[in-house]
Amino acid sequence: MAAENQSQTSQSDLPCVLILKPPPSFALFGDHFLDSPKFQYLKAYESPLPLSQFLHTHAQSVQAILSSGGAPVTADTIRLLPRLDLVVTTSQGLNHIDLSECRCRGIAVASAGTIFSADCADSVVGLLIDVLRKISAANRYVKQGLWSSQGVYPLGYKLGGKRVGIVGLGSIGTEVAKRLEAFGCSISYNSRTKKPLAPYTFYPNVVQLAANCDALIICCALTDETHHLINKEVLSALGKDGVIINIARGPIIDEKELVRCLVKGEIRGAGLDVFEHEPDVPVELFELDNVVMSPHNAVFTWESFEDLCKLVVGNFEAFFSNEPLLSPVALDHLPQFSG
Amino acid sequence: MAAENQSQTSQSDLPCVLILKPPPSFALFGDHFLDSPKFQYLKAYESPLPLSQFLHTHAQSVQAILSSGGAPVTADTIRLLPRLDLVVTTSQGLNHIDLSECRCRGIAVASAGTIFSADCADSVVGLLIDVLRKISAANRYVKQGLWSSQGVYPLGYKLGGKRVGIVGLGSIGTEVAKRLEAFGCSISYNSRTKKPLAPYTFYPNVVQLAANCDALIICCALTDETHHLINKEVLSALGKDGVIINIARGPIIDEKELVRCLVKGEIRGAGLDVFEHEPDVPVELFELDNVVMSPHNAVFTWESFEDLCKLVVGNFEAFFSNEPLLSPVALDHLPQFSG
Repeated sequence: MAAENQSQTSQSDLPCVLILKPPPSFALFGDHFLDSPKFQYLKAYESPLPLSQFLHTHAQSVQAILSSGGAPVTADTIRLLPRLDLVVTTSQGLNHIDLSECRCRGIAVASAGTIFSADCADSVVGLLIDVLRKISAANRYVKQGLWSSQGVYPLGYKLGGKRVGIVGLGSIGTEVAKRLEAFGCSISYNSRTKKPLAPYTFYPNVVQLAANCDALIICCALTDETHHLINKEVLSALGKDGVIINIARGPIIDEKELVRCLVKGEIRGAGLDVFEHEPDVPVELFELDNVVMSPHNAVFTWESFEDLCKLVVGNFEAFFSNEPLLSPVALDHLPQFSG
Repeated sequence: MAAENQSQTSQSDLPCVLILKPPPSFALFGDHFLDSPKFQYLKAYESPLPLSQFLHTHAQSVQAILSSGGAPVTADTIRLLPRLDLVVTTSQGLNHIDLSECRCRGIAVASAGTIFSADCADSVVGLLIDVLRKISAANRYVKQGLWSSQGVYPLGYKLGGKRVGIVGLGSIGTEVAKRLEAFGCSISYNSRTKKPLAPYTFYPNVVQLAANCDALIICCALTDETHHLINKEVLSALGKDGVIINIARGPIIDEKELVRCLVKGEIRGAGLDVFEHEPDVPVELFELDNVVMSPHNAVFTWESFEDLCKLVVGNFEAFFSNEPLLSPVALDHLPQFSG
């Protein structure tokens, strides 16, 4: 009993990290993966109180927030928390956090950094090969027992020699380029500014990039500028032999227009990990063999999840020990991607 | 009429290339893709005669054979054709041709050479990423509308850092190694002899290779020595976290044993383009999400098919013009692979 009391006392003395909604990883693994002896979690979603009331009640305790893509950190939330000094997100993308408000208040932000870049780039290549070479569709064909009754399966397209255009040459875009070079693809890119060290052709706008590539890979962050960046004009420049891959954020593409192009055969195919209204996916895509989809899990593997847990906990522990964050976000220089 | 007669006369004077069964590409594209003004085809499969009688009838005409994986060129066939001097196969694999008989008779053999190596290597990477990252399975999940109702999908495994073991470091194996290095995999291999120039770890036998890798890639030729090379012992050395990819020939793996391992979870998954009794596929595999299959089309794309047609016709034309073959097979040094 004495030990229990002592534990309770020391527990309540620990600094508080607010969680608005459980990150997706909690559902997969339980929440003890992010436990630490150096801080405690305050779980808003476990309280019967409405959020604003919950925040009022704990306003003086919350020093940090653990955030994830599905749980926005709005200016309203931030304003209710006068002692908030840190937001750590389990994502590489930051579009769910009001960064201006953080900047004004001097609140530090830490992200998943480049932890997902390799997995994300692997997914890009996997989706691209799948769409070009019809791997998922052929797998379905074989598993339906059609090979022996219906014979040869329609040919796919070669990856080698394809012109690949990358939108957003950040850490993921760079990893994608490195991989696709090994397949004999030629790489070009568009980003806000030309990268002096990148050995790839730069196109100052996305329409030009799309007009000069066979596969367009979306790796940029979702911002006001990139919302619906991939619109009718871009898709039309990509053309009927073009393929598009999106592992960044759904709203970067005008999804309605993309669906129309895919249904009409105005582009050759798509590999999509993200959607405008996740987890809702346009039903028109369900029947299309030239569309390969994944449920926003391009960033995640067992191995990267383990790395992420260490990074998230490490960021909070560093912060509460007055040490430098492990993966701080420079709020004036937002990264190219969103993972 | 005069022109037609003339055409018929000159057609019948052209040297004869026997086709026993139409190559798979004929079914896809029609047979005019391999036409040439310099020779004519004699199509055994279009004649009502039994094969031996057909061969007797045309014994003095046949100077060459166009062969493919599905149409064996046996010693019996060869012996019925005293003027046969050349066999051209549309495959990289040669296991359907009696090479000893060709060697004895001084019959030249030409193959698809390395035309399929890049496509094959791309398929290996596509299948490997698919199995590890569950791309086909996740695609099915999304297309069945399960994402919004059932939530997050089970995590896959990271490709980066995996130890990849290649069985047969020929042209395809080498292309696979080149690609997977760009993903951060470490490469080792087994082949009949150590390759002095290959910068990868050599294991003198397949069991050792399997025991030291996370993914085993089968890229060797099917010969008497490699038949059922991948047996219970090798699969057990690969172990429950191991993945196997086969784009070479079905009978290199003891398929019954592989199916048992997959059903029992004794290996993690498989990507299979080839099977022991194609086009029949073990039905036990139809229900397994960790098995991705393609209908022996890893070698083929529109682009490589076009290259193949040029090469096949080019080989015959060179031969009938007494020029060197474009892709001769050195019968004393059979290549590592089978495509």
